[in-house]
Parts: sequence; structure tokens; C-alpha cells
Amino acid sequence: MSELRLNVITREWVVIATERALRPDQFKHESSAQVPIIFDQACPFCPGNEEHTPGELLRFPASRDWQVRVVPNKFSALSKQTEQNHNHEGLHHSVSGYGLHEVVIESEMHNHFLAEQSLSAISNLLQTFKTRFIAMYEDPAIAHVTIFKNHGEDAGTSLIHPHSQIIGTPITPIQIRDRLDAGKRYFEDTGKCLMCATLADELAEQSRIIFDTTHFTTFIPFAALSPFHTWIFPKRHSACFADISDDEITELALHLKTILSKLYSGLNNPSYNFVLRSESPRASEPECFHWYISIVPRLSRPAGFELGSGMYINTSIPEDSAAFLRNIIV
Amino acid sequence: MSELRLNVITREWVVIATERALRPDQFKHESSAQVPIIFDQACPFCPGNEEHTPGELLRFPASRDWQVRVVPNKFSALSKQTEQNHNHEGLHHSVSGYGLHEVVIESEMHNHFLAEQSLSAISNLLQTFKTRFIAMYEDPAIAHVTIFKNHGEDAGTSLIHPHSQIIGTPITPIQIRDRLDAGKRYFEDTGKCLMCATLADELAEQSRIIFDTTHFTTFIPFAALSPFHTWIFPKRHSACFADISDDEITELALHLKTILSKLYSGLNNPSYNFVLRSESPRASEPECFHWYISIVPRLSRPAGFELGSGMYINTSIPEDSAAFLRNIIV
Repeated sequence: MSELRLNVITREWVVIATERALRPDQFKHESSAQVPIIFDQACPFCPGNEEHTPGELLRFPASRDWQVRVVPNKFSALSKQTEQNHNHEGLHHSVSGYGLHEVVIESEMHNHFLAEQSLSAISNLLQTFKTRFIAMYEDPAIAHVTIFKNHGEDAGTSLIHPHSQIIGTPITPIQIRDRLDAGKRYFEDTGKCLMCATLADELAEQSRIIFDTTHFTTFIPFAALSPFHTWIFPKRHSACFADISDDEITELALHLKTILSKLYSGLNNPSYNFVLRSESPRASEPECFHWYISIVPRLSRPAGFELGSGMYINTSIPEDSAAFLRNIIV
Repeated sequence: MSELRLNVITREWVVIATERALRPDQFKHESSAQVPIIFDQACPFCPGNEEHTPGELLRFPASRDWQVRVVPNKFSALSKQTEQNHNHEGLHHSVSGYGLHEVVIESEMHNHFLAEQSLSAISNLLQTFKTRFIAMYEDPAIAHVTIFKNHGEDAGTSLIHPHSQIIGTPITPIQIRDRLDAGKRYFEDTGKCLMCATLADELAEQSRIIFDTTHFTTFIPFAALSPFHTWIFPKRHSACFADISDDEITELALHLKTILSKLYSGLNNPSYNFVLRSESPRASEPECFHWYISIVPRLSRPAGFELGSGMYINTSIPEDSAAFLRNIIV
């Protein structure tokens, strides 16, 4: 019997299509075998081609043999050179396209997927995220910073060289405002953080947990929107990613490597997006939000029903997907 | 200079990427020429194969030579045979998958696109929508009915034979609840309908209007989420599609045919979704909502930033897209 489940954090309903559900291994991606290419002369992100990405913002280590570089996005829709204007004409509200858009080149190697990188390389990447995240918020005109990654064509990227992106916008996007509202309402009702409560529930129930350590839990949410939709939650209550400690970064790197490796080998390198959702360091109510990472493998395509209703039909069963990923040894 | 625009109905912000924007004709779809096939022996929706879609709910005309048929969706995620259960265990809210899911076969011809059909055939389809919409709401367990269409592979359909779908769910999806909230707040503040006000603004400004007649206006919204995102608004305030008159149906058919034909010839048969957003006939506050049709050509793919923030980057300029479509003669 199929079931509709409510995601209490996003207020989205999902139809878990039990009768139509596929087995976890039926979501395996049919990808052609990739020949590893360490260097591509034509790639703007490969070492030696640094002049194609001017205005470098960060390099680690700070030598010719870098492993991570951060550069401004050449094709950004937002710009620091834009005047800051808010316009309100009747029902038309607009803001000039002021903002920051950076590209984080995650490796010196051309097609070395994040899942295959060393723990120390992934830790360095997370440190880089933290540094640039804090730096962007130093600009008082930036209301919100989104860190995300598109991996694979179905996830919206055509560039093979592994990279992620950081965008600072002059407004707070609706997805964050909605989560803040839900968190605030729950805190007012119960005096607790909604995400802390969600995590406690998941840990008590165990059936959707993929990987659990001292500081973090990786799990499939009860109302996963789509097959293998996964959350990584820090156990310590913290509204803002900027508060992460060095120890926590090391452990988060292990979670990220574990889940991405499990997806890579279990589903044969599927396209995925990840996003780090966090409040601002300037948050006035840090008790009402809890930062986390959401990973969305792109194994299904939203169609008219999803676009039209905001309800999703998930043809996988969260508990089965979690068991499948738990059993994949990486 | 790029600009962020707020959709006051959905509260979503869109980056109109002026500098990166493509010309309207650059969104032309590269589709291979289709050979018209009137009948396909293997298609379950073609006349003569009616036994593959049992439980017919409506046939028009009621003869062997039908033009529209409505049948239950064989692969529905929701079922009338399901018991109605609401479960609340701590943070886990779920509802059993009770619901209705119907397929509307829009033509007796195998690949006769909706855009190519006669006005009377499209009027018959809209009458069929109205009849089934009202019938679904007769079930008190149905909280909301969504009418939608997926056209083309990028819009999530693999079946060529033109068809649309109607889903009745035991809960009201979040996209409708959010629009109701926005409508209610605006009504409380101003005593006016937010959609009536939006339409009045668009008609005063004219730059985004595509087609305007006595009862309906087809236009690109100020904060269009994606290239060629189009709305058809009835001019008469009405919360519920069930209230549409026969005269209005005839005119709505003309709008639907006009916009779909303009997209078909201007952009070379792009994939698209459409959805009819309407309140229930049981609406308690009909002054706070206004039904409409939203058409979303699938010309871009949401990636990590869109998924992660709910903000969209639109690489087309709404005013240019509207001018382009106005100038296409159909």
C-alpha cells in the first residue's frame, strides 16, 4: 500500500509509491566506463591553465602545486560591480543583480571524482568552503550564501573537472525562509530545534540510517523527495556552518566520502547535486535552525505533477534504499 | 545589468540573467522531423485498443468514434482501494495512498499534438477536464485535484499519444497552500485578489502580454522562473475552474491553441508541462484565490543552485520572450 509522507522541515508531501517501487539496484546508472584523464590541455581548471580563470581568491596549498583553487565564476549571473538597488513598483519587487559567485576547483586532477579523493583532500575542500563562506558574509549586502555542487550531466554540469560553487545573494531564498519559518514555529511550540528532534527520531528508529559517528549522521529522510535523497546532519546543534570545528571537518569529510563512494559504486556513478543549507553567521535566532547537507542523486525527473503541486512521487522506499547503501562496502 | 525579481504569488525570487541572456530564437529545440502516425497498433491509447485501458470513466462522443476518453491510470501511485488512514507518530506524519489518478486521452490520432488540434477538439478536452474535476471533488476524501500535461521526453513522458492527467490527493499540496496563504494575506491587506491585481498590472504595462481577449489573458510573468514560462489568467475573478462557463471554455481553447502553436512553431516543438491551478469547489474563502494555467517549456534544467535555494536563474528576458511569441503568426 503506497503512503504519503510529510517532510516536517520542508512541509512537502511525498507519495512513496510502494507498489510501483523499484528495487534499489534498479536505479543503477548506465554509465560508460570512464578513462581517467589526469590533465586536459583544453580544460580551464587544469593546472597550467590558471590564466584562464583570473582573479584567484584562494589557493591551497599556496604553491604552484595547488590542490584546491577558488576563482570568480566567469559566467556569473550576479556581479559585485552592480549597484545595489531595491525597486518596488506596485506588485513588482526587484533587486539589482548584486552578488558573488565563486567556483571551487576541487582537485588538480582533471577527472578525479570527489568520491575518489583522499580524506585529507576532502577536509581541505571543506576548510575552503568554510573560509569562503565566512568571507562572503563579510559583505553586509550579502543576505545569504549557498554552497552547492553539480556532478554529472543530469545534475546540470558539462564541465568534467570536479568543482563546486558558492553563491552569495542579496536576498534570502524562499527555501531557507520556509525552513526558518518551520524551525521557528517548532521552537516556539516545543522549545526544541526541529532538526535536532528529527535526528533524535531517526537515531531511535535506525531503519533509515546509513552511517553514524560521534559528530554526524548520514541518513535517508522519512519523506525523501526522490530516490536516494540523503541528508548529513551534524549532531551538535549549530545554526551556521561557520561554527564547524577542525575535528568536525575531519569527520564530515569521512561522511561525505562514505556516502559519495557508496552512491558511486552502488549506483554506478550517478549524477547528483549537493547543497549545504546553513543560516547566516548574523542569524538572530540561532536556536531555530540547524545546518545540514542534502544530497540529491538525479535518478528521476520531476514532471507536470511535481511542478504543478510541489508533491513528489518517489518510486523507491527510503528504508530499502538506506539498507542497500548500508550494505555497500567502501 | 542582471536583476532579481520576486514572484509575489509564489514568493520565489528569480535571477533574470540579462548579461548571459540568450536571444529568444536561441531556445529553439533541435527536434528531428516527426512523421505523422495516425494509428499505432502497439499504442494502448489508439482506437481499437480500448481493452488495454479498462474501467473507462468518460467517452466523448459516446460512440465507437470517440475523440476524448478518460481512463484510470494503470500505474497510479494512488488508489481508491486503499483504506484512509492518517498516522501521526512524533514527527512522522503520513497518510495512506488513497487517491484518484486518471488519464485523459486527448485525441483519437496517435501523434496529433494538442497544438495542432481544432478549436472544437480543444474545447471538448476542456469540457472533459471540467467534468472529471467536478466528479473527483464529489469524493469527500479528496482534498485537492491537479490537472496537468507532460509533453515530450524532457517533460517526463515517453508515451507519444497525446494525453493529460488528473490526480486527486487526500491532502492539499504545498504549492497550493503557499499560494492560498499569499492570496489570503494580500486580500486581508488590500481587500483585493492578488491575481486580479497582478493581471491588472500586466495589462497596464503590456510588455509581457502575448495574447489578450475578452475573458482571458496569456502572458509571461514579471518573474518568470524559466525561459518562456507562461500564464493564462481568466479575467473574471473565480477561485475554481469548475465555475467556467461554456463561452469561457471556447475562449480558453483559443488561448491554449494559440500559445501552444506559437511555442510549437517558434521553438520547434519543445517539451513542456502545463498545470491548471485551482481552488476546490468547497473553498471557504473564494475571494483569496484565482484559478489559472501555467505552462512551463522545459528548455533549461534546474541544478544545484535551484534545488538548494529555490531561486531560479532565468537566461531569457521575459519582455523579449513575450515580444518574440507575439510576433509569431499562427
